Amino acid sequence: MSSAPLGIFDSGVGGLTVVRAVQQLLPHEEIIYLGDTARLPYGSKSPQTIRQFADEDVRFLLHKEVKAIVVACNTATAHALPNLLAQYRTPIIGVIEPGVEAALSDPSTQRVGIIATQGTIRSHAYQHALAQRRTGLIIHGQATPLLVPFIEENWIDHPATRMVLEAYLQPLVDKGIDTLMLACTHYPLLIPVLKQLLPEDVRLVDSATTCAEHLKKELTRLNLLAPTDKDGKLAIHLTDLSEQFEALARQFLKKSPGRIQRAVLE
Amino acid sequence: MSSAPLGIFDSGVGGLTVVRAVQQLLPHEEIIYLGDTARLPYGSKSPQTIRQFADEDVRFLLHKEVKAIVVACNTATAHALPNLLAQYRTPIIGVIEPGVEAALSDPSTQRVGIIATQGTIRSHAYQHALAQRRTGLIIHGQATPLLVPFIEENWIDHPATRMVLEAYLQPLVDKGIDTLMLACTHYPLLIPVLKQLLPEDVRLVDSATTCAEHLKKELTRLNLLAPTDKDGKLAIHLTDLSEQFEALARQFLKKSPGRIQRAVLE
Repeated sequence: MSSAPLGIFDSGVGGLTVVRAVQQLLPHEEIIYLGDTARLPYGSKSPQTIRQFADEDVRFLLHKEVKAIVVACNTATAHALPNLLAQYRTPIIGVIEPGVEAALSDPSTQRVGIIATQGTIRSHAYQHALAQRRTGLIIHGQATPLLVPFIEENWIDHPATRMVLEAYLQPLVDKGIDTLMLACTHYPLLIPVLKQLLPEDVRLVDSATTCAEHLKKELTRLNLLAPTDKDGKLAIHLTDLSEQFEALARQFLKKSPGRIQRAVLE
Repeated sequence: MSSAPLGIFDSGVGGLTVVRAVQQLLPHEEIIYLGDTARLPYGSKSPQTIRQFADEDVRFLLHKEVKAIVVACNTATAHALPNLLAQYRTPIIGVIEPGVEAALSDPSTQRVGIIATQGTIRSHAYQHALAQRRTGLIIHGQATPLLVPFIEENWIDHPATRMVLEAYLQPLVDKGIDTLMLACTHYPLLIPVLKQLLPEDVRLVDSATTCAEHLKKELTRLNLLAPTDKDGKLAIHLTDLSEQFEALARQFLKKSPGRIQRAVLE
């Protein structure tokens, strides 16, 4: 057992969908969340820059003496996780492996669509992880870079968002996907509109819930679960504070984020 | 006269519209351009963070021994220019004053619409600069945060872009604007579609050309113009390099950007 906090980071506030899933599954864990809002988005930036940013994010959390770290950002997982695992001893968990496990948990999965940022799609991390686990899969990656801006503007129900989504999804539907992976921590907010736009039999897989389940298994295996005598607290640190981020944080977390602190990275 | 280079910076590559205007008007000037692509966009971030970033951008250019600096970013001009002017001796020129002068150059201007990022609109820098110069103006600021993502994705001609633009412009049209200020250095790329969507008699004012004219006047006044014996070179430095930025740079500059270097800020 360990009462040290968990560290969770993302480029912005999208990773709070993971925090929410972790809080539901592991209510006794104290969580320190870091959102690099000053430099978001990561999804359009280069692998080299993303690795540098992720390294700075991890070091911030290690200074807070966390017992384990969750990379709650698909782009950072795709480009930086192998380097982070090689460099640090603290357990570090990404969002890709759990999502892939979940997508393949249904043995009938054959045609998988992936929607994500440019960075995640171009990294081929999802495509590679899927192909390694099951041969004969048909995999279609679709970069959907405009979805994060629409979500951050809270235009989720706007007809223009629907039009953009239709343009992005049509090639995947044409290819007859049976599973759609929401490979960005922002995308769970789009689930209601995705369900309207996709054929009924397409299964949606988001990484937030599956990542929390994977974290629980890992903490159990490493004997690092928190004592169950009190509820865990959440402290949110953002590299840039703005009203907009606080409003978004509330939306992702589906409750008040409490006092948000400004983080200075080194 | 001075053969030292000019420094021009922006959060990304949008400021290359200003570079292009400067090259056309002042073909002998050597230009060092800095785009802070690793941390773009600035438009959604807080005044404090924008001031810090702009300060780091200016210091990078001062290390290159530039004779004058153009802040080719509306959000950075809106939030950081006064601080920069107070802190540094090198002449620093923003994009707001020239744009405002241009908007008011027509004495019949009465109802001015401004489209810009959240940061620029919320700063009230344009509204203030307009109101200071002419009493009785009717001013409508409209934050249009989704336009930069659409432009950066090169979806300029997509029906969804048109739908978003219509949603943004309708309130301005309903208010009977006679002038629309494109208060973001990305927006000149939207001029063809804006002309289709707006009533014919609405005048478009973009800050790139007017900023170049203002720069010429200032360099002349300070006796800092370059000798006219050779053409000026352009060196582009970006804090993050990616194929996408290079393709965009070509689009903004309307020619090859040459070799782009990676800048490391301190």
